[in-house]
Amino acid sequence: MQRVKAVVRYDGTHFSGWQVQPGKRTVQLEMERVLTKIHKGEHVPVVSSGRTDSSVHALGQVIHFDTTLAVPEEKWPKALNQLLAADVQVTEAAFVDSSFHARFDALEKTYRYRVHLTKERDIFRRHYVYFYPYPISVEDIKRAAPHLTGTHDFSSFCSSRTDVTDMVRTVHEVGVEERGDELLFTFRGSGFLYNMVRIMTGTLLEVGKGLRRPEDMPAVIEAKQRESAGNTAPGHALYLLEVRYE
Amino acid sequence: MQRVKAVVRYDGTHFSGWQVQPGKRTVQLEMERVLTKIHKGEHVPVVSSGRTDSSVHALGQVIHFDTTLAVPEEKWPKALNQLLAADVQVTEAAFVDSSFHARFDALEKTYRYRVHLTKERDIFRRHYVYFYPYPISVEDIKRAAPHLTGTHDFSSFCSSRTDVTDMVRTVHEVGVEERGDELLFTFRGSGFLYNMVRIMTGTLLEVGKGLRRPEDMPAVIEAKQRESAGNTAPGHALYLLEVRYE
Repeated sequence: MQRVKAVVRYDGTHFSGWQVQPGKRTVQLEMERVLTKIHKGEHVPVVSSGRTDSSVHALGQVIHFDTTLAVPEEKWPKALNQLLAADVQVTEAAFVDSSFHARFDALEKTYRYRVHLTKERDIFRRHYVYFYPYPISVEDIKRAAPHLTGTHDFSSFCSSRTDVTDMVRTVHEVGVEERGDELLFTFRGSGFLYNMVRIMTGTLLEVGKGLRRPEDMPAVIEAKQRESAGNTAPGHALYLLEVRYE
Repeated sequence: MQRVKAVVRYDGTHFSGWQVQPGKRTVQLEMERVLTKIHKGEHVPVVSSGRTDSSVHALGQVIHFDTTLAVPEEKWPKALNQLLAADVQVTEAAFVDSSFHARFDALEKTYRYRVHLTKERDIFRRHYVYFYPYPISVEDIKRAAPHLTGTHDFSSFCSSRTDVTDMVRTVHEVGVEERGDELLFTFRGSGFLYNMVRIMTGTLLEVGKGLRRPEDMPAVIEAKQRESAGNTAPGHALYLLEVRYE
């Protein structure tokens, strides 16, 4: 038995997120379908670094699976890509120790959120950016962002639809950058709660709109109440960029 | 009765081209659906500068339609965009003389073809570029392209599935430009035959691959036989950029 670690990229537009759900097209289902085919019908479970929601994209999702086949590590991407649907792609694969676990060993994740600051929607980017036709102060957003870093109980930034009880996470960076007509947020941290990145984005955009002040952020965290934070920004503009391990 | 000229942009991915066909989702059908709704059920025919094929995109398709409504010209884009599907958009509208005809008055059209020169497909561009993982000589393509300009009988570059009998067209420009990891072709001419831009692209790529020589192009035109030209490049990487009128 050989454990394989792989990096997976997907366009989330036509997926109901990562995790297998009855009757839904998910990335996990697609990966397992292809691996099961390669293993002549034997079911091969796939473990990822974590779920992504419906319509969320990934450039660097990390998975692991176990195989009994004698395929060399460098041949795995091609073997999988030949069978995978056009919206999923394996970009790297390597053999790892059987103790490696894509979820439990993840040290840090980086997410990107793309906001399209424009008056006119771009139909070609409609599945990839959040169309935001409102005047905003990027300066205020840049002042608010650093307040969201550090180790905190992030209950205010967690969807109520969660089973997780420990709400403490460490956020290393909340980057804010203008690139062309887009505002790019970069969230890097030890881990993120359910919808946390999207709620942080929604809250920062409310700061940009002048509905909140940058210096209100510590009180929003302190409240530990979902209601104290802003709206959940839509999933289709969110990207899991990278998962870091030892 | 007022004639309206409008510029339309569409993502062709989920359309079976421009023209209404039974049981198919087409851009014309979508435009007429919305206009009919605005006109309280009265059917409003829409005339475009010409058809585009299944999966072909447009940044500047031009249409005209007649209306009995008292909507000012500058209000038309918003009125239409509120009802149009997310993959079609009206970017401009203006009142024109009732003698204006989007198809018959078109003086010049410009198309863009995007070839993605890469070893690894980009899943996020899969509906928008032609993935071309072969080594090619851009220099040879640049030498071949000018041979395709001028006034010629372009029968060699026309799909056999056409009712048109006059195959003479004037091509003003066949531009070839590298931009990032893409090779961009620009075709500007008085008009183009059915599949002409896609066959020209396929033929130029065969020159790039070394399967044909740049100096063979005049003989390809001269043959006036579809078989003498190259393959038809796929539609999903083609864009109608602009239609010019008096």
